[in-house]
Amino acid sequence: MKRIAILGSTGSIGCSTLQIVESYPDRFAVVSLAAGSNLELAFKQTLRWRPKLLSVAHESAAAGLKKRLRDAGEGETEVVWGTAGTVAVATHPEVDFVVSAIVGVAGMEATYAAVKAGKEIGLANKECLVAAGELFIAEALRQGKPLLPIDSEHNAVHQCLRGGRMNEVERVWLTASGGPFLHTPREEFAHITVAQALNHPTWKMGRRITIDSATLMNKGFEVIEAVRLFNKPPSHVKVVVHPQSTVHSMVEFVDGSILAQVSVTDMRLPILYALTWPERITSDLRFDVLSLKHLDFCPPDLDKFPCLRLAYEAVEAGGAKTVALNAADEVAVAAFLEGKIPFLGIPATIQAVLNETPAHKPESIQGVLSMDSEARALAQRFVDAGAGGSRVAATK
Amino acid sequence: MKRIAILGSTGSIGCSTLQIVESYPDRFAVVSLAAGSNLELAFKQTLRWRPKLLSVAHESAAAGLKKRLRDAGEGETEVVWGTAGTVAVATHPEVDFVVSAIVGVAGMEATYAAVKAGKEIGLANKECLVAAGELFIAEALRQGKPLLPIDSEHNAVHQCLRGGRMNEVERVWLTASGGPFLHTPREEFAHITVAQALNHPTWKMGRRITIDSATLMNKGFEVIEAVRLFNKPPSHVKVVVHPQSTVHSMVEFVDGSILAQVSVTDMRLPILYALTWPERITSDLRFDVLSLKHLDFCPPDLDKFPCLRLAYEAVEAGGAKTVALNAADEVAVAAFLEGKIPFLGIPATIQAVLNETPAHKPESIQGVLSMDSEARALAQRFVDAGAGGSRVAATK
Repeated sequence: MKRIAILGSTGSIGCSTLQIVESYPDRFAVVSLAAGSNLELAFKQTLRWRPKLLSVAHESAAAGLKKRLRDAGEGETEVVWGTAGTVAVATHPEVDFVVSAIVGVAGMEATYAAVKAGKEIGLANKECLVAAGELFIAEALRQGKPLLPIDSEHNAVHQCLRGGRMNEVERVWLTASGGPFLHTPREEFAHITVAQALNHPTWKMGRRITIDSATLMNKGFEVIEAVRLFNKPPSHVKVVVHPQSTVHSMVEFVDGSILAQVSVTDMRLPILYALTWPERITSDLRFDVLSLKHLDFCPPDLDKFPCLRLAYEAVEAGGAKTVALNAADEVAVAAFLEGKIPFLGIPATIQAVLNETPAHKPESIQGVLSMDSEARALAQRFVDAGAGGSRVAATK
Repeated sequence: MKRIAILGSTGSIGCSTLQIVESYPDRFAVVSLAAGSNLELAFKQTLRWRPKLLSVAHESAAAGLKKRLRDAGEGETEVVWGTAGTVAVATHPEVDFVVSAIVGVAGMEATYAAVKAGKEIGLANKECLVAAGELFIAEALRQGKPLLPIDSEHNAVHQCLRGGRMNEVERVWLTASGGPFLHTPREEFAHITVAQALNHPTWKMGRRITIDSATLMNKGFEVIEAVRLFNKPPSHVKVVVHPQSTVHSMVEFVDGSILAQVSVTDMRLPILYALTWPERITSDLRFDVLSLKHLDFCPPDLDKFPCLRLAYEAVEAGGAKTVALNAADEVAVAAFLEGKIPFLGIPATIQAVLNETPAHKPESIQGVLSMDSEARALAQRFVDAGAGGSRVAATK
C-alpha cells in the first residue's frame, strides 16, 4: 500500500491521480491533500477520501470548510491553510509518495520540504526544476529517493532511459507538438492574437501553459527540466517537432540506437508509472498500434520561436538565469493575455530580463524566491514600458 | 576482450561482424571462422584475421586452401571442413561468443553445439528458432547463457524489453516493411512475376529472403522466433506494417506504454549491440532524429499475405509444424524462382504440407533434421504435381 499526498488535488493532475487511486484501491491510499481555492471540489474530495490532513489557500476558507465537513459528519480530517499547510500535507509522517502538482513557485517550498523529508516525489510542477533544479537534484541525491517526472515528455524519457546506463546516453530528444503556429509564416507572428494563441491543437490546458506552448517556451522549460533531471549538458537535450504528440519523447544511446515512448495522451499513464515505478501494473490506458497512421517530424524553427533559444541560453548560464526566465515569462504571458503586449513582446520581455539578470546560483529556496520576485518586478517594468512593440498588435 | 567465432564469415552478417572487430580491436578478437564456398574471401579473411581455426564446406577445398595459406606464409590456421568443421569452429574452447549467421538448417547443428558448450550466442540464423526453437531455448536456459538476436526486429525488441520486466510485457510488435506488394491489389497477386518479387523496396538481401519478404513469410518466421525468444503466446506477438523500416520493432507493456526502437538500417548496429550487451559502446552508426520526416503504419492484410497467417497457425500448433513451415517455404520459393509454380503457389504448397504434418515435438536436433527432410520431400511432391496453379502464371 503506497500512501499518497497530493499537492494540487483539485487541479487536472490531482484529479487524475485520484482517479488512479480509485482504480487501484488495494495499492494506493490518500493520506493528505492540498487544494487551492476550489473549495467545493476540496469539500467533495475530503468526503470521498477522508484524508488525515487537508490544506486550503486561506485561513478563513479553512475555518469554513472545517465546519461544513463537521456538519456533513466528517470530523476526522484536520484542515490547515497557506504555505505552512501545504508543507504539512507534503511532509505528513504517514506519507510515502508526494504528487507535486501545484502550478508555479507556490508548489516549490512544499515539494522541497517533501524531498528533505525523504519522500518519493512524482513531479508535475515545472518550477521546481526550472527555477530551483540544482537544489532539488542535490537534495534528492542526498536522500537517495527518486524524483519521478509525471509530465508526458520526461516520463517518456525516464522509460526510454531504462534501455541503457546513464553514461551510455548520447542525447535526450523531447518531442514538441509545435503549437498552433507551427505552419504560420514568421512575418505573421507580429499579429498573432490572444484567441489564436489560446487555440492549442492537441492538449486542452490552462491559459499560461497554452501560451507557453504557442511560443515553445514550454518546451524550453522542459529542456531545462531534462538537463537537470537527467544530468545532461544542454547541447545534448534536443527538441524535435512532432505534431501528433504520439511519440512522447526519445533517448538516443551512444551506439546509435534510439528508444521512443508511445502511448495515449492521458496524464493518468505517467502518473501511474511514477506511482508504481519500478513496477508497471495493468491499466486500461491502451494505445492501439494498429491505429497508428502517420507520424510527422521536423526540426524546430528557433527564429520563429526565440523563447526556445532563450531557454537554452538560460540553462547554459544556470542559476538565477532560469529563475528569471520563468518569472519573466509568467509576467509577459499575463501581459499578453491582458492585451498589454503583443505576442512577440513575450520573448522581448524575457530577453530584456535575462540581459539584466546576473548568473548567481541560488543557495536556498528562499534565495530562489527572492530572485523570482526581483525578476518579476523587472519584467513588470519592461511590460509597463511597452516592451516588444505597441499593444495594438495584440488586440483581438 | 571478447573472443569470437563467426559461423558464416563470408556472408553479409559475417562481413559486418568483421567490420566491427576491425573498428574495436581492443574489445574483440577473432578465434575461428566458418566460411561456405566463397573460398577467395575465406582466404583473404584468414590472412587478415589469422584465426586459430577455419572451416569450409568441402574436404577438397579445405586441402587446397590449407596449401594456399601455407604458400602465403600463413601456416598457423588449422583448416577443417563440413558440419564437423563448423561444429569445431562453434565450440572452440577459446571462444566466448558465437555469431550464428549460416543460413538454413545447415547452421543449426553447430549453433546448438555452441549453446551446449555454454557459449554466448548472437543469433542471425532464423531456422534455429523457427525449426528448433523449443530445443534452443531450453538448452540456453539450462546453460544460463543469453541468446542475443541480431536481426533488426528482434534486436529492437530486446532493447525495448529493458523498459520493464518480462511479466509486464503485454505484446511484442514486429514492424514489417510490407514488401513490394503492399499496395498491389489482391486480384493481381496471381500474376506476380519473379522479377517483381525480387524487387524489395528497402533491404538488399539474398533471393530467398527477398521472396519471403514479398510473401510476408519472413515476417511469419519472425513471429515464430519472437514467440520462442521472448516466451510470449502467438496472440501477443503482432505485426504492424511500417514501410520506412525506421522503427525496427516495439514492445507494449501492461500499463499501456509502448517503447519503440529507431536506428539506421545497418546490420552492424544489432551485431554491435549483441556483442557488447549488457553494455552499449560508442559507434558512428548514427541516426539523425531531425531527418525524420514521415513514418507510416497500417495493419497487415492476411488475405493478401496468407503466409503470415500460416506462420501463426504453425506456431500455435508448435513442434513439427514450424519445421515443416520453413522446409516447405524453402522448397516452394525455389520452385517459384525457377518458374515452376506461380507466386500464389508458395502459400498453397506450404498449406498443403502443413495439412499433412502431424504436430509432433522434435526431441533432438537430429529429429528436427529428419522432420525437415520429410517436409521437403512432401513439398517437392506438391510442387512437381503443380501445386497452386499452372506454371504459366509465374513466367516473366
